[in-house]
Amino acid sequence: MTSKCSAVVIGVGPQQGLGATLAAYFAAKGLHVFIAGRSPDKINAVAETIINSGNLATPVMADATLEDDVIHLFEVASLKQRRISIAAYNVDSNIPAPLLETGVESYEKLWRQNCLGAFLFGREAINSMKKFQQGTIIFTGATASLRARPPFTAFASTKAGLRALAQGMAREFGPLGIHVVHAILDGVLDGERARKQFPDFVKNKGQDGLMQLEAIAQTYWALHNQPASAWTHELDLRPYKEPF
Amino acid sequence: MTSKCSAVVIGVGPQQGLGATLAAYFAAKGLHVFIAGRSPDKINAVAETIINSGNLATPVMADATLEDDVIHLFEVASLKQRRISIAAYNVDSNIPAPLLETGVESYEKLWRQNCLGAFLFGREAINSMKKFQQGTIIFTGATASLRARPPFTAFASTKAGLRALAQGMAREFGPLGIHVVHAILDGVLDGERARKQFPDFVKNKGQDGLMQLEAIAQTYWALHNQPASAWTHELDLRPYKEPF
Amino acid sequence: MTSKCSAVVIGVGPQQGLGATLAAYFAAKGLHVFIAGRSPDKINAVAETIINSGNLATPVMADATLEDDVIHLFEVASLKQRRISIAAYNVDSNIPAPLLETGVESYEKLWRQNCLGAFLFGREAINSMKKFQQGTIIFTGATASLRARPPFTAFASTKAGLRALAQGMAREFGPLGIHVVHAILDGVLDGERARKQFPDFVKNKGQDGLMQLEAIAQTYWALHNQPASAWTHELDLRPYKEPF
Amino acid sequence: MTSKCSAVVIGVGPQQGLGATLAAYFAAKGLHVFIAGRSPDKINAVAETIINSGNLATPVMADATLEDDVIHLFEVASLKQRRISIAAYNVDSNIPAPLLETGVESYEKLWRQNCLGAFLFGREAINSMKKFQQGTIIFTGATASLRARPPFTAFASTKAGLRALAQGMAREFGPLGIHVVHAILDGVLDGERARKQFPDFVKNKGQDGLMQLEAIAQTYWALHNQPASAWTHELDLRPYKEPF
Repeated sequence: MTSKCSAVVIGVGPQQGLGATLAAYFAAKGLHVFIAGRSPDKINAVAETIINSGNLATPVMADATLEDDVIHLFEVASLKQRRISIAAYNVDSNIPAPLLETGVESYEKLWRQNCLGAFLFGREAINSMKKFQQGTIIFTGATASLRARPPFTAFASTKAGLRALAQGMAREFGPLGIHVVHAILDGVLDGERARKQFPDFVKNKGQDGLMQLEAIAQTYWALHNQPASAWTHELDLRPYKEPF
Repeated sequence: MTSKCSAVVIGVGPQQGLGATLAAYFAAKGLHVFIAGRSPDKINAVAETIINSGNLATPVMADATLEDDVIHLFEVASLKQRRISIAAYNVDSNIPAPLLETGVESYEKLWRQNCLGAFLFGREAINSMKKFQQGTIIFTGATASLRARPPFTAFASTKAGLRALAQGMAREFGPLGIHVVHAILDGVLDGERARKQFPDFVKNKGQDGLMQLEAIAQTYWALHNQPASAWTHELDLRPYKEPF
Repeated sequence: MTSKCSAVVIGVGPQQGLGATLAAYFAAKGLHVFIAGRSPDKINAVAETIINSGNLATPVMADATLEDDVIHLFEVASLKQRRISIAAYNVDSNIPAPLLETGVESYEKLWRQNCLGAFLFGREAINSMKKFQQGTIIFTGATASLRARPPFTAFASTKAGLRALAQGMAREFGPLGIHVVHAILDGVLDGERARKQFPDFVKNKGQDGLMQLEAIAQTYWALHNQPASAWTHELDLRPYKEPF
Repeated sequence: MTSKCSAVVIGVGPQQGLGATLAAYFAAKGLHVFIAGRSPDKINAVAETIINSGNLATPVMADATLEDDVIHLFEVASLKQRRISIAAYNVDSNIPAPLLETGVESYEKLWRQNCLGAFLFGREAINSMKKFQQGTIIFTGATASLRARPPFTAFASTKAGLRALAQGMAREFGPLGIHVVHAILDGVLDGERARKQFPDFVKNKGQDGLMQLEAIAQTYWALHNQPASAWTHELDLRPYKEPF
């Protein structure tokens, strides 16, 4: 089994995470999914699960913040004349801290993961997609993309920076056929992290009070399928009972 | 053939318009569509076309700005214990004018059609939907919803007012299971109006340079199908090459 | 004593209100202030206080929602070849209610006071100012101008509508020398209303936790004095400890 | 002559630049101004001019992107028990480029100058101001702070990041008495750079079509003088005839 079309998902960690869910969803739709992350164990496990369910996946070690890794990732995904249909940037780093206790290192790390990586990922996705004049690039934003509050000031600065990157890319490359989306996830993801770190919160919210990962994947897929005459650049996504 | 679920679309005019397209799309998905507008000829024609293609439709005379009409519309759509799945507010009135030449009558007319009607439509949709704790209400916005420019100042005032209505409704009724969406259409619709009024513009833009009505319907339907754990309240939609 | 320059303030009520404070501030700066409102007792009292302190004021009965009243107001303020330097729209009507309990009458009343009146006031101010190619028009906005929440959905709709009006006017008439400002007051005013209606809240907030009326007037005056090469169209104003 | 109060301006370059103008303006108001920049010739010249006009100024070599420099700057400005009244971040770096030609180095440089420097400057200003529970910090934003367009995508990303920093700081430290402002300059500054680089543009715009530096300083000073009960966090500033 082969596919002429591929998807690239970066920021893939645990099986119960958004990256893994997006990858499995895109693979189930017939795309060969390239699963990028920094932990070989994690990306291998995610790829294996997809392959075991009869779909196509390849793990690729990549640190989003390293230019060579990102270039290599898109080279691999483009091999055998594959077209990259979707590229999803799912890296997200948060280090909450009061401003006066925020160090340069911490702010720089956030910028590298939330902004620099997105810049590299977007740039190389576009470099791969431009000759086909098609492809969808989706950046995952957060509540903080639109408003900065303590103790998330440094984080918000980088998520706002990511939002602007996505907007500039959309304006520059939309007319060339590349669909760039910024999806603002305004809620807590129902993934491994939340379940481990605050199990009571998860229980109290109830199933639909958290963002189901598959539900997010469904909307990302719908965005990818929008005809070029009616593209969305930005949308919010939140649980029905999330206050906003 | 019957359906337990209905859709209500108000602001239905010509067959080649957004209202008619939304109605036909929802009907093709199995909903009984209630087609509301002020022109009996137009709503009858749209309903007939849907029925002839084997789907369910009922025309209902209704002026969105008249409370009794809107109440009646939702009563009719709720008959036979039907649940209203989707309600789409597609009324849109624009009267471009320099500010100093804008009269009270003109501004009031815009407010009645773009705001008061939306208020009544949303309120009555919610009144019908609340006992089932489900349903999607979609308001159609425009570029002017976010920015006011001459000669569209009065128009923009009412579209901004509509946007706020939708946002307040989403905050109040989301937690009760009603999904309220504000969709910002940022481009020219490829409908009868544009084709008649500026045929050269339409030709120059090319097919995907205008908003295809079916493409908009596809996204409205995807919004309706979002699981409650990941709802979108607001999104933009524009042709791939529309500058923004 | 006479002045070639006048100010118009509409929405003047109690002496301890924003309208009265703006009027007194502008009068103290040497402008002949025209004090407009619906209550003869109130506007007379405000005018008298200003005159007693040695400055110039004239009360003018005017309902902001009535076209003839607004036209008359600016005619009076322009008599004796006076130039209108500042016009401040300070009418603000709020009727909190859950959406399902909001009636057409109530929403329409809000629109008339927050939008239609502002439209008339702005249009007639511009009609008076345009031949001199100068003048400042300030519209007072609120937290709800930017976000709609229950039970303020209808109110927010009209404040968002006002904001768009101001923005469109600024874009159309800025290049003609008329400075249009939208000032978003994000806090509780330390006026007669708050002191009467929630005295405990006022006490707990402390003096600077409420918006001092004179402090607002100071900023409005600074906005009026901005050179044409660096005008502000929109700004927020809030007490230092107001959460936002 | 001495002053108990100081101002710190960083990003001071040519005499006909915004940094120098702010410094001279604050000095003329009686503050001892600390003039920070990377070029000893430039900051010395600016300080000398201020001193020659009878006011107080001290040049301090500082690169905003270096933590030690910024810490040292605020130490110097706080000597002799001086209170820092105003701190203005005026560093602004722009490197226009199509996205596909934007290198990591270039994006990182923009981030260091527009974001990291602002973070350090804000943090150290707050560290100096907090014991007095007073002080105004002003960050200079740009059109790109709100919208990203090619060829300014990387630049806009960092200006959006700066805006979020300022917002988070305002939310965290406003209640502690520190006034944080984000001023969006939406126009071309009438400074040495514009006059040299595009003299025809400057001529065509006319004097008030460019942002006069003194006009900006006037508004910064008015912001500093706002009473704590009515502070502005964000405002735009643009020439009267600038389209927006």
